[in-house]
Amino acid sequence: MSQLSEVTQLAMDLIARESVTPEDAGCQQMMAEYLGQLGFDIEPMVFEDTTNLWARRNQSGPLFCFAGHTDVVPAGNLSHWHTPPFEPTIIDGVLHGRGAADMKGSLAAMLVATKRFVNKHPEHKGSIAYLITSDEEGPFINGTTRVIDTLEARNEKITWCVVGEPSSTAKLGDIIKNGRRGSLTGDLHVHGVQGHVAYPHLAENPVHSAAPALAELSQMHWDNGNEFFPPTSFQIANIEAGTGAPNVIPGELHVQFNFRYCTETHAEDLKQRVHNLFDKYGLNYDISWVHNGSPFLTDHGELLSATCSAIEAVTGYATDPQTSGGTSDGRFIAPTGAEVIELGPINATIHKVNECVSVADLDTLADCYEQIMERLLC
Amino acid sequence: MSQLSEVTQLAMDLIARESVTPEDAGCQQMMAEYLGQLGFDIEPMVFEDTTNLWARRNQSGPLFCFAGHTDVVPAGNLSHWHTPPFEPTIIDGVLHGRGAADMKGSLAAMLVATKRFVNKHPEHKGSIAYLITSDEEGPFINGTTRVIDTLEARNEKITWCVVGEPSSTAKLGDIIKNGRRGSLTGDLHVHGVQGHVAYPHLAENPVHSAAPALAELSQMHWDNGNEFFPPTSFQIANIEAGTGAPNVIPGELHVQFNFRYCTETHAEDLKQRVHNLFDKYGLNYDISWVHNGSPFLTDHGELLSATCSAIEAVTGYATDPQTSGGTSDGRFIAPTGAEVIELGPINATIHKVNECVSVADLDTLADCYEQIMERLLC
Repeated sequence: MSQLSEVTQLAMDLIARESVTPEDAGCQQMMAEYLGQLGFDIEPMVFEDTTNLWARRNQSGPLFCFAGHTDVVPAGNLSHWHTPPFEPTIIDGVLHGRGAADMKGSLAAMLVATKRFVNKHPEHKGSIAYLITSDEEGPFINGTTRVIDTLEARNEKITWCVVGEPSSTAKLGDIIKNGRRGSLTGDLHVHGVQGHVAYPHLAENPVHSAAPALAELSQMHWDNGNEFFPPTSFQIANIEAGTGAPNVIPGELHVQFNFRYCTETHAEDLKQRVHNLFDKYGLNYDISWVHNGSPFLTDHGELLSATCSAIEAVTGYATDPQTSGGTSDGRFIAPTGAEVIELGPINATIHKVNECVSVADLDTLADCYEQIMERLLC
Repeated sequence: MSQLSEVTQLAMDLIARESVTPEDAGCQQMMAEYLGQLGFDIEPMVFEDTTNLWARRNQSGPLFCFAGHTDVVPAGNLSHWHTPPFEPTIIDGVLHGRGAADMKGSLAAMLVATKRFVNKHPEHKGSIAYLITSDEEGPFINGTTRVIDTLEARNEKITWCVVGEPSSTAKLGDIIKNGRRGSLTGDLHVHGVQGHVAYPHLAENPVHSAAPALAELSQMHWDNGNEFFPPTSFQIANIEAGTGAPNVIPGELHVQFNFRYCTETHAEDLKQRVHNLFDKYGLNYDISWVHNGSPFLTDHGELLSATCSAIEAVTGYATDPQTSGGTSDGRFIAPTGAEVIELGPINATIHKVNECVSVADLDTLADCYEQIMERLLC
């Protein structure tokens, strides 16, 4: 292993730990020992089934924070993996294993970047922290959100936060995320009256009564988006009614839909518009809502400047800040007032079999992380 | 048992045989022995898992036929039965057991009516036949339809057919069925492109693309019905799309719908109108159709007159010929040119737990059946 970089070695150590969400499998202990040697105070925060780590070097402001997760999604069908998912394997310069790109490679790059920076600038400005959870791929109830609650309760404020989510698409650092859309899920139940298809006058088909409303919903224009966000989007994810028999009129229709919404609207506005529509059609219905996260945007400030400048300095090309894609734990951190940016490896293989990452990219990523700290903490 | 009528005794003998579809459990053997003693030629017709009986007395025309089935639907939840479903039990003049009303009581009434009539008129006009199957409650593939095919192949034509389906609602004989609507089922698959809800531009939601077409379908006016039939009715019986996850755009939508249609339209017309609609909306779809039966109507003729007259003579009140309700095996017999009427006991408890029938009604039913034969075969 002598020819492997320290970033690659650390990434392999982490991948070898089978930390399927919400398991941490010792990853955070390994990270804590590494950071302890660099002068960090280590504060494990265990909530229910979730292991979290808060580690901080110095107490002064401003506070620069790396955020990420040690848990991974399940391996899926093992027979489709070319190499065992929890036995990190390098083939032609590419590291294979579950979590290689999402996001154990990022964690390794953060650690090495921090070590180099701290060794070079032992008396750096402000503080450095790590906010690590084992519940990012799961229900995100006992993870980042509860660590943030704890920090807020003691008025500990993050100034700048770099999340290691795999933001890159074609080459390392080509895209960073400087915001994310909000996510709102509705579970709609439309109530009818079950009956025999031969006696429709004795029944009330909820699929029929809801169909015009669903048609209007699916074609509705919610907003125009803005400079930073695409327009708010509505999608029906699940729909279900019926007993399976062809001669029974269903008594209830269940529809689950999801909004990805931009900063031009609010969750409460969307809920009201949906209710208004169903009321207009006179449906007998109820909806239970789950608000997965508000949109956030870091559209200016020192963190965005430092990140763009660092990537260009390391790679020679400019990055493109975007707000597209799924949610991340950044949605829990941004509302505290922190500037939040996501920067990580190429996301082509995340959540798939044969997840992998270029070892050269991991070294480049460590350089980028280090250069961001250089720009903010010196 | 000495105080029980022969109709009741025969009904109890049949109920005690656990003939859950497609089992016959010896019912037809019992009927064949009974009919054999009355001079019927017995012709069992076994097709695959289904037992059928064709029994005929005399070879001349016209041919009067009783049609029915020995199979019953499953008992359902045994703990909800007050008496064991296959142990016929009389409580306060009501016979309880699976099949009491649908339609072993009718079979018993037919047998006793036939015995009385034949004993009274050994040289009656024309012929009497029985067309009995054990596949009426099942997929109706190897039952009445195959017996009819066999009769058609040898040019054996039924003139008048009385089906013992439980047609009565408030009192015995208050309603007979002189026709049934047709039934056409469509299995629609709308094809889209699966994707993540965060990237709707990379996916195509089949629920969204189909919703306007389904809304139009569910509100479409198919015809006005006519003197004998209510308007054609369309019902979505089942709808399903989605992986269960709230963040995945489904790749395919499945909708199963059913038409109950009257004699103002044809199955091919309905199919064409559905295809035209989906084509208008530019959907990527396919439909597989199952034609469960064409509508039939016996709106005049000797059988209808004889049945109405017989019921009024026996009960003192007029019957009401209707075409509503589900399908029956009459749909397979009527297309041969036969006049078809359904007359049987009160249907309030059929297919339910604690199925039951009044023993007095069974005796009245036997009288009605006998009086129909008196009017047609003397």
